[in-house]
Amino acid sequence: MKAHVYVTLKRTVLDAQGQTVADALRRMQYQGIADVRQGKYFLLTLDDGIEAGAAKAEVDRIAREVLTNPVIEDFTFRLED
Amino acid sequence: MKAHVYVTLKRTVLDAQGQTVADALRRMQYQGIADVRQGKYFLLTLDDGIEAGAAKAEVDRIAREVLTNPVIEDFTFRLED
Repeated sequence: MKAHVYVTLKRTVLDAQGQTVADALRRMQYQGIADVRQGKYFLLTLDDGIEAGAAKAEVDRIAREVLTNPVIEDFTFRLED
Repeated sequence: MKAHVYVTLKRTVLDAQGQTVADALRRMQYQGIADVRQGKYFLLTLDDGIEAGAAKAEVDRIAREVLTNPVIEDFTFRLED
């Protein structure tokens, strides 16, 4: 089983990296981009045979306690068999 | 319309950052994690009224030409209304 965890800056936090990418895209003449936000992506491979409920609880705990800085970041995740 | 772009290191490329996270999780007694790969996540907000086919083509081009280093990285993306 795999877990995809997406960590993004909270809406209220300035995303300088994302703004730099957006500015660069405009300068390079790419069309139609209003805004860019950049975040992190983690692909966790879980041990075989782990039960779905336990996996969900453990990934939630890891995302919350380790992968995310709760002051400035939010996370979402999804499990995949 | 929003585009979610996920950029990951190719399978064959050593992911030192992901391995460090995996080692840290093991040291901290989190259970059930076999492997971690770390990547980047971009959330592109597209201009209103852009047509889905054009959006798909432009996001594909941006991901391929700007957001990804094709020597060591792969990308996937999905569009969301």
